[in-house]
Amino acid sequence: MRGKFISLEGGEGSGKTTAIAFIREWLEAHNIPYLMTREPGGTPLAEEIRQLILNPREEAVNDVTELLLVFAARAQHIASKIQPALEKGTWVISDRFLDSSYVYQGKARGGDMAMLDQLSAWVVGANKPDATFVLDVPVELGQERVVQRQHQDRLDKESLAFHQKVRDGFLERAGMEPNRIKVIDASLSLDLVQQQIEKQLMQLNNAWSGDG
Amino acid sequence: MRGKFISLEGGEGSGKTTAIAFIREWLEAHNIPYLMTREPGGTPLAEEIRQLILNPREEAVNDVTELLLVFAARAQHIASKIQPALEKGTWVISDRFLDSSYVYQGKARGGDMAMLDQLSAWVVGANKPDATFVLDVPVELGQERVVQRQHQDRLDKESLAFHQKVRDGFLERAGMEPNRIKVIDASLSLDLVQQQIEKQLMQLNNAWSGDG
Repeated sequence: MRGKFISLEGGEGSGKTTAIAFIREWLEAHNIPYLMTREPGGTPLAEEIRQLILNPREEAVNDVTELLLVFAARAQHIASKIQPALEKGTWVISDRFLDSSYVYQGKARGGDMAMLDQLSAWVVGANKPDATFVLDVPVELGQERVVQRQHQDRLDKESLAFHQKVRDGFLERAGMEPNRIKVIDASLSLDLVQQQIEKQLMQLNNAWSGDG
Repeated sequence: MRGKFISLEGGEGSGKTTAIAFIREWLEAHNIPYLMTREPGGTPLAEEIRQLILNPREEAVNDVTELLLVFAARAQHIASKIQPALEKGTWVISDRFLDSSYVYQGKARGGDMAMLDQLSAWVVGANKPDATFVLDVPVELGQERVVQRQHQDRLDKESLAFHQKVRDGFLERAGMEPNRIKVIDASLSLDLVQQQIEKQLMQLNNAWSGDG
């Protein structure tokens, strides 16, 4: 039986790391084989591409360059890691995936949506996640959480207006594909956030067990 | 007056390096401002992408990944180096450019030609070279020249059949765009090769001076 593919999405400070730790515990408690991964990255080459994208540099990075790098890493990630795992029946949990490209390179930076659609068709095709959890928090709350962290990369330093575009972008994506993309209210208490996630995981697991 | 953009193409051992040295001398003798560059590469970020593409690695590189990396580097190269130079009236000479993608990733590795056309339209658009010199030698002669070199990268190690596809690919490209792509018979003596190149350079320079 093919494994389920779940992606986690959300702006900075939305609590993805905590949510991923919870999903890991849940999968282990249910004896489901799984693989945790992330984007950009997930394979040695894709992680090298990630460094090119995220490292601060003096040279202004062309928008099309950034978009092609993101999809180059994604093509590698799918071909050499995600697809083989799913075919073995392993569930794949990815910290960010396709929707982040639409939101960061597309919506927030004004990228060409037709280009995104074409790259998505080439690179992702039928390998869209079975479920995408968007961890949604008001921008101010997300930023409060971020400033408490030590490490900040290039994206953390963007303006509030940028982060608002990111939040709006994810909600817009969820509106376009409500069957796949589930919005999790991540401003609630940890307990209530985890209850929402668990409900989604149980639905996926029932569909999974039911398939065979 | 906008500078002229020339790309040099050809398989391994076709004598590009020698031809580029000759072009440099010719441009200096004619007091033409110029910039020498190469692909993949040409800017710090694009050179880092070049390393990702050319360095031998254990991980099998997905074909779409390689193609997107090549065009990511090209988008950066055009935006931050080629276009600004041409606009200042500087001639740009690039060791490899777009045609290498069609030949190596397309023809030789069986890449998707529609994808190449779409990437070319997005990334290169109107920035095609004014002239492309294809240095053409029989595969056996090219290989003889290559084995005399010390450094061999991943492409040098491909089979003869691969190199034959590369040669055929460049000749096919020249047949499709004969006004832009000039085939230089690089199996002749150095003198005769340089005469062919000089003839092309003089035509470009006359067109250039005549434009203004």
